Amino acid sequence: MADYAPPAADVIFVLRDVLRVHEMDDPAAYAMVDESLIEAVAHEAGRFCREVIAPLNTVSDRQGCTRHADGSVTTPDGFREAYAQWVESGWGTLAQPEVFGGQGMPHALFSVIEEYLNSSCPGFTMYAGILSGAVATVEAAGSDELKATYLPKMVSGEWLATMALTEGHAGTDLGLMKTSAVPAGNGTYAISGEKIFISGGDHDLTDNIVHLVLARLPDAPVGTRGISLFLVPKFIPETGERNTVSVGSIEHKMGLNGSATCVLNFDRATGWLLGEPHQGLAAMFIMMNAARLGVGVQGLAHAEHSYQKAAAYALDRRQGRGAGQRADKATAADPLIVHPDVRRMLMDARAFAEGFRALVLWTAVQIDKSHHASDPMVRKQSDALISFLTPVIKAFGTDRGFEVAVNMQQVFGGHGYVKEWGMEQIVRDARIAMIYEGANGVQALDLAGRKTARDGGAVANALLHQIAADCQAAPAELAFIADPLEKAVHHGEAAVKMLLEQAAVDPEDMLGGAYAWMQLVGTLALGWMWLRLASVAHAQLAAGEGDKPFLEAKLSTARFYAEQQLPLCTTLRQRVKVGAGAMMALSPEQFLRT
Amino acid sequence: MADYAPPAADVIFVLRDVLRVHEMDDPAAYAMVDESLIEAVAHEAGRFCREVIAPLNTVSDRQGCTRHADGSVTTPDGFREAYAQWVESGWGTLAQPEVFGGQGMPHALFSVIEEYLNSSCPGFTMYAGILSGAVATVEAAGSDELKATYLPKMVSGEWLATMALTEGHAGTDLGLMKTSAVPAGNGTYAISGEKIFISGGDHDLTDNIVHLVLARLPDAPVGTRGISLFLVPKFIPETGERNTVSVGSIEHKMGLNGSATCVLNFDRATGWLLGEPHQGLAAMFIMMNAARLGVGVQGLAHAEHSYQKAAAYALDRRQGRGAGQRADKATAADPLIVHPDVRRMLMDARAFAEGFRALVLWTAVQIDKSHHASDPMVRKQSDALISFLTPVIKAFGTDRGFEVAVNMQQVFGGHGYVKEWGMEQIVRDARIAMIYEGANGVQALDLAGRKTARDGGAVANALLHQIAADCQAAPAELAFIADPLEKAVHHGEAAVKMLLEQAAVDPEDMLGGAYAWMQLVGTLALGWMWLRLASVAHAQLAAGEGDKPFLEAKLSTARFYAEQQLPLCTTLRQRVKVGAGAMMALSPEQFLRT
Repeated sequence: MADYAPPAADVIFVLRDVLRVHEMDDPAAYAMVDESLIEAVAHEAGRFCREVIAPLNTVSDRQGCTRHADGSVTTPDGFREAYAQWVESGWGTLAQPEVFGGQGMPHALFSVIEEYLNSSCPGFTMYAGILSGAVATVEAAGSDELKATYLPKMVSGEWLATMALTEGHAGTDLGLMKTSAVPAGNGTYAISGEKIFISGGDHDLTDNIVHLVLARLPDAPVGTRGISLFLVPKFIPETGERNTVSVGSIEHKMGLNGSATCVLNFDRATGWLLGEPHQGLAAMFIMMNAARLGVGVQGLAHAEHSYQKAAAYALDRRQGRGAGQRADKATAADPLIVHPDVRRMLMDARAFAEGFRALVLWTAVQIDKSHHASDPMVRKQSDALISFLTPVIKAFGTDRGFEVAVNMQQVFGGHGYVKEWGMEQIVRDARIAMIYEGANGVQALDLAGRKTARDGGAVANALLHQIAADCQAAPAELAFIADPLEKAVHHGEAAVKMLLEQAAVDPEDMLGGAYAWMQLVGTLALGWMWLRLASVAHAQLAAGEGDKPFLEAKLSTARFYAEQQLPLCTTLRQRVKVGAGAMMALSPEQFLRT
Repeated sequence: MADYAPPAADVIFVLRDVLRVHEMDDPAAYAMVDESLIEAVAHEAGRFCREVIAPLNTVSDRQGCTRHADGSVTTPDGFREAYAQWVESGWGTLAQPEVFGGQGMPHALFSVIEEYLNSSCPGFTMYAGILSGAVATVEAAGSDELKATYLPKMVSGEWLATMALTEGHAGTDLGLMKTSAVPAGNGTYAISGEKIFISGGDHDLTDNIVHLVLARLPDAPVGTRGISLFLVPKFIPETGERNTVSVGSIEHKMGLNGSATCVLNFDRATGWLLGEPHQGLAAMFIMMNAARLGVGVQGLAHAEHSYQKAAAYALDRRQGRGAGQRADKATAADPLIVHPDVRRMLMDARAFAEGFRALVLWTAVQIDKSHHASDPMVRKQSDALISFLTPVIKAFGTDRGFEVAVNMQQVFGGHGYVKEWGMEQIVRDARIAMIYEGANGVQALDLAGRKTARDGGAVANALLHQIAADCQAAPAELAFIADPLEKAVHHGEAAVKMLLEQAAVDPEDMLGGAYAWMQLVGTLALGWMWLRLASVAHAQLAAGEGDKPFLEAKLSTARFYAEQQLPLCTTLRQRVKVGAGAMMALSPEQFLRT
């Protein structure tokens, strides 16, 4: 079975040749970035993930986590040691704030490591996966005292964190939550309630765990306007005392077994308010938005990992005969790679993974700009773009990541269905990404309603115009993608117009087409990235620079994307247009079989 | 959690109102079919599956099968008793030949039971699932003596059967197989070799197991022209002696755990030749084609089962607020069913399940005609249609069945990912259907090459013309589906033309578009079925007959299908057109990451 190989060459191509981040010096963090740093991250973080994290992936699935009689939780064999190495390596502090012990480098570089980790062992990666979001939340909403106590240990990875939102009856609808917070009179609060689906709710990786918990104060208004955010540590740092939060059980899941998904019981646990009373949701969304982008990266990671395994298998496994001159008559059968239908699946995987990697890294640069660009207008523009694209990266990235993993499993035939080759595990692990941190349908509603209709389509249209302008500026040799992409942009513009009309006349129609709109934006955004990747490849080839087979593969993959994916935009526009009429026609009872 | 409810009303609507099988009397078996028989099968077989088979589904997954130290295999708790009840019930003999103890009824009626069984517990259903194909193979290729010895016991279900094709290095490419058959001089053969992925290779359900095994005679030509078919019983009926076939291991799979997937070792096992030497593949394809249609039915069964659970959940689970007047202000949240995006997924599931059920039953009638119609021309036409549609039913049915199961899991949010609700099991169980009995990519190649190009598109075009004619004959009230369907037929006609050109100029282009062609035919065939379902619903409503909410739901679902699925045909035609150029551009080495 092929080892996971961090796609360093592709990462370097995107960061250095396409985004040219080493030439940026605003935000200031980019001044630290030169070509050798890009290469060091791409290669050395890759080596760490390949050597230390990837070997955990099978035991993560097979052994899973254990809750003991005393309520403590142990992670699979090797997790503890690997986590210690992770902290020791310092990779986790790369983009963390310097003031709390981080290295202050661009988020764009850390996104690379996020991908590698999630390809290597997603079950392990869950523990540290939300840490930077948690740091950002405490940094934004915590008192100076809380920041001083918690952030240095969180930044270093000495302590890990959770986000404790969901309750049995409050999933997407956080307004239904019941967990209560009662002022204890000494500036702390007594938190009581049951939270479910808490990733890393307990484990043996760190000495302390910082739970960020949504709860209601006694005077809280009903609904989401009555939710406050609290910091509830497993152990009280000042006293070393064990807080009254305990693990009720660990969920039995389809996959991601190495990640302890806990039911957490808070029994008058001591907590500290983060931010203002009743403003908890806004504070939590700092974390949530970071998490959503991180989940999108998981889609990329699953696609890349499964692609690598399938490509290696397709080059090795001999079955059937290629058409015409590709057949190798000296052998009894040709490798799978000669078959167009196998290549169809592999090329689709490449087209998604490489295009989406570019989108993820481009967005990560926007995140850095939105936080730290010197020009407030740049910060605002970048923030608007991220806000618009976050639901797309989360939903489109995880839908396609899962679809690619399923296709790569298919390349293995029956051997993909048995556990031995590891393909079915990738599929099971990938499935959750479409659900958690806001199910993909909810992302689509967010995109259509809050992110498209609310500003009258301003950000959507600005992005579409930018794509169209890039199509028009493309050299004639790239017409194979620039022309169909520009045509697809027109479908996008028409969809925005329809969504705005629907939002004004009958919002249900807008909601009915929201999913297609999300898919349309994702398909266009990837098309845009492929235009940019192809442009750079074309220019380098014309100049006689770079790795010729690598660059030619980029052009061929851009062509594949243009031929296979862009035509979908016609269909998606049509789905936006028809709205929700046929969806809403049945009475609830008509959905039941008799 | 909602119990599985066999969709009897829908089955009766298709068989009685749409296909009107009770009015047929050719083939002769249909003369036995009246309305009460249709209702009896729809309801009573449903009751049996619901009460006896469905309760096995959880233990099937959790416990799985066990191989003991002596090599024997036991099935999950309850399987043995349920299988005895199944044999006792006689449902399995419904469409089996009367001469060997069957009831000689139409295959179309048995297809209903196949669906119910696969919704109830697919792991259990695997054991008897290929029995009718095995019976047909022995009936067609066996000597009178073999038929007399084996068929009565197989027809009754007293003995079960396997199809032993695959070897470690010979999956899709059966020509690579090495299992040998050496004449023993007494009319039997000594079979030696290892077969893998053998469903029901051993178990404790029956006293004997009839293995149908592909192997090579000593003088066999290389490749698929040197494969012969042998009947190898676990116990030799004449002597009661244990044959030298043993279970090497049971596979650990993604799902379908209740089905024992075995490595079978044949060590000079005694076998009997079925049919002519070196003609084994043709004989095996009798079984394989039946199995492929049966696997398509599994796609239907997974979609229906997962739909029912998701619909019940969406009516019960309250989360969020509906838009506008649908909100129920007296409660804290509305049921999921108010949300257009949840309905999008549920309606898609209905549109697939009900449309595909009609296609499966229509095809089953063609199977009966192809075998038993009095007019040889009708037999020939039906045979051509089945041959054309078999790869579509297998591949399109299982792709969409899996996709629906994944979407229905999505309706449950995080609760769909934990084992408790059973949704993740349906997804895991459904995944294999896209792989076994010929991976879906292989089905697409079969459709494009052997079934479309080889006859110059004759059968494909005849079917398309039939659909177009039905569109033109549809009443004006059905223009909402007839018009877009007719337009979609033109995409189909254009695709046939392109495929034929590609087949003549560069077959790789045809192979590159084969998958899209399969999806296009599937989408059109379902559109055709929806036109027929809608036509009957419309006529009954106009006449004031039938169950009004049921019929109105049919019209709304037809509209949903027309709006959401038929627009895909534009994209699929485009994918057929572009061929394989971009797929074949990379060298094998370019597929590897560096």
